Amino acid sequence: MRWAVILAGGSGTRFWPLSTSARPKHLLPLAGPRSTAEEAVARLAGLVDRERILVVTGAALAPALQRLLGLPAENMLVEPRAASTAPALVWASWEAGRRDPNADVLSLHADWSVADAEAFRRAAEAALAAAHTHRQLVTVGIVPTRPETGYGYVVPGEALEGEARRVTRFVEKPDAGTARELIAGGALWNSGLFAWPASLLLQEVTERTPELGPGLPALRAGRVDEFFRLVTPISIDVGVLERSSKVAVVPGRFSWDDVGTWDALMRVRQPDAQGNVVSGPAHLHDTRNCLVWSDQDPIVVSGVQDLVIVQANHRVLVMARDRAADLKTVLEALPPEVRELKP
Amino acid sequence: MRWAVILAGGSGTRFWPLSTSARPKHLLPLAGPRSTAEEAVARLAGLVDRERILVVTGAALAPALQRLLGLPAENMLVEPRAASTAPALVWASWEAGRRDPNADVLSLHADWSVADAEAFRRAAEAALAAAHTHRQLVTVGIVPTRPETGYGYVVPGEALEGEARRVTRFVEKPDAGTARELIAGGALWNSGLFAWPASLLLQEVTERTPELGPGLPALRAGRVDEFFRLVTPISIDVGVLERSSKVAVVPGRFSWDDVGTWDALMRVRQPDAQGNVVSGPAHLHDTRNCLVWSDQDPIVVSGVQDLVIVQANHRVLVMARDRAADLKTVLEALPPEVRELKP
Repeated sequence: MRWAVILAGGSGTRFWPLSTSARPKHLLPLAGPRSTAEEAVARLAGLVDRERILVVTGAALAPALQRLLGLPAENMLVEPRAASTAPALVWASWEAGRRDPNADVLSLHADWSVADAEAFRRAAEAALAAAHTHRQLVTVGIVPTRPETGYGYVVPGEALEGEARRVTRFVEKPDAGTARELIAGGALWNSGLFAWPASLLLQEVTERTPELGPGLPALRAGRVDEFFRLVTPISIDVGVLERSSKVAVVPGRFSWDDVGTWDALMRVRQPDAQGNVVSGPAHLHDTRNCLVWSDQDPIVVSGVQDLVIVQANHRVLVMARDRAADLKTVLEALPPEVRELKP
Repeated sequence: MRWAVILAGGSGTRFWPLSTSARPKHLLPLAGPRSTAEEAVARLAGLVDRERILVVTGAALAPALQRLLGLPAENMLVEPRAASTAPALVWASWEAGRRDPNADVLSLHADWSVADAEAFRRAAEAALAAAHTHRQLVTVGIVPTRPETGYGYVVPGEALEGEARRVTRFVEKPDAGTARELIAGGALWNSGLFAWPASLLLQEVTERTPELGPGLPALRAGRVDEFFRLVTPISIDVGVLERSSKVAVVPGRFSWDDVGTWDALMRVRQPDAQGNVVSGPAHLHDTRNCLVWSDQDPIVVSGVQDLVIVQANHRVLVMARDRAADLKTVLEALPPEVRELKP
C-alpha cells in the first residue's frame, strides 16, 4: 500500500516575530489561507489515504499539528531529537513497514508551497510507480527554470520506463556556470519529494549508512529513543541517495518553494499592482514592493519600497527585503527577552 | 510689569501616532527629557515671574497642561475656538492689561525647541526693553544661517537704541534667490517671539485689524466667547505686525525649531554614531539615519536607512524621512477608526 511521510520539524525563527517555536512557519497561513502543512495533506488527496499519512515532528509541535491536520494520533511520529532527515525518514519508513510489510513510502516536507497540485500528484504518482515496479529510491526532479545556485541538481542517465531514469549523479549547489551546463545537459532540481519501498530504504541504509548503523538494531526492536540516541545526524541525500546504486528520477513540472524567508513569501503570494503583499490591517501610501504583515495593530506605511514590515507577538520588525536571509544573525544579536516569544 | 503669553494650542496630528488630540507634540518629551511646553516655562526663569505667565490653549489640553506646568488655574486661558494667533494674543494681552494696566507682554510658542536658553533670554530681555521704552511692537529676528525658504523674513531699518531697529518690511517665505538677497541685506528670520505693551497691541488692533474689530467691544466687556464668535481668524503677523508703523526688531542669536515633523526631531536630538535617533525598546542592525521610536513593543530594524519608524497608541508608522511633511495627507486617507487615537 502507499504511505506518505510528511517531515514537519522546524525551529520557528525564519518568520520571526510571527513564527514561534510552537508555531513555526509550516503551521501558519503564510503562503495562503491555509498553512503549508494543511496544504501538504490536502495535496495527497487521491494519492495516499489519510490513515496512511505519517507526520514526523517534534514534541513541541505535535499537539498543534494533530489539531490542525486531524490525522490519527498514532500517525504523529514525535522525534526524541532533531537529527536531520535520514533518521526521521528511516524511522517513518520502518514504522510504515511495521504496519504494512508491502509499504511504498512517499516522503515530502510540510513547508512547501506548490503552485500546481495536479502536476505535483502526477509526479508523485510516477515516482511511486517507478519505486514499486523497479524497486528503486526515486526522487522527483523539478524541470529547472533558471540556473539557481541554491539548489541541488540530479543528473539523469539510462531510461527505466516512461519518463523514469536512473540517476547518474547528484550535484549540490553548483556555481552559476556549472548550473547552466547542468541544465543544458538535462539535469533537474532535486526536489526532496521522494518515493521508495520501505523495505528497500531499510536495506540500503543497512548497507550504506554507517552513521545510522549503530541504531538500527534498536529501531528494529522498536526502541525509537535508543535509535535516535545512537545515530549521527545526516541527511537522506548525503547519507543514502548519493551512495546508493538504486536511485532513479522522474521529472516534476511544478514550482515548489520552501518559503524560507519573509522575502520568499513575496514569490508565493500574489502581489498587488504596486508589488505589495499585505496581510492584516495595513494602510500603504506611495509604497512599492513591500511585505506588510500585521497580526496586531494597524500599520501605516508611506513612501518606502522593498521592505519587510511585520508586527506580531508584541514585536515589530522592519527589514530591507534583501536582508531577509540574514534574519537569524539579527535575532542572535538580540537580548533573549526580546528574541524569545511566548510559544 | 512683565507678562508672558505661551501659545499652546495644537491638534496633535504631526507626531501621529504618538501625539493625540489630548497630548499634542508640545506636551510630549520629544526633543528631550521634558516637553517643549515645560521647557518654555523653564526658559522664562529670571525674565517673567511664574504667576504672570499666561497659557492660551484649547479645552482638551488645558487640564493636562496645567498639571504639567503647575501654573495657577486662572493663568490657563482656554480658547472657545482656535482662531489663529491674533485673537489669542489680543485676548491674552487684554487679560494681562486687565490685571496690570502697565503690562508688557512677551509672547512665545509652547512647541519650540531652543538650544541656547541664555541667548533666548538676552533677546527676550532686549525685546521687552525696546517695547517698553519706545512703545513698539517688537519681534525677535533670528540671525539666519541658511537661505531658508520656509520662514518669514524681517528687514530692519532705522536704529532705535542698542541693537533695536525699526522694521522696514516683512517678507513671507521667499524663494531661495530672494532669501539670499535678503540675508545679504541684513534681514532676519521672523521668530514669533514678540514683545509689546499690552495697551499698545489693543490700540494697534483697534486701528488696523478690521478682522477683529466686531469682537473688540465684547472683549473689553469681558465676554470672551462672544469675542471669539465675532472675529475672523487671522495671524498676528498679517493682522497686526505687517500693518503697523510701530514695529521694531531686535536680533536673536539662538537656534529655534518648532519641531513640526518626525523628521525635524532628528535636528534637535543628538543622533548616535550611525546617525540614528532611538527612543524606547529598539534594536538596530546595520541601520543608518533612522528615527526609531517605541512607546510599546520592541522594534527590530535591519539594513535600512532614512526611515521614521514609530509604534505608539496601538499603531505602527513606517515612513520615508522625506515624507514626514506629508504625514497629514497620509492620515487624511486613513479610515477614521485607524487615524483616530484614544485621547
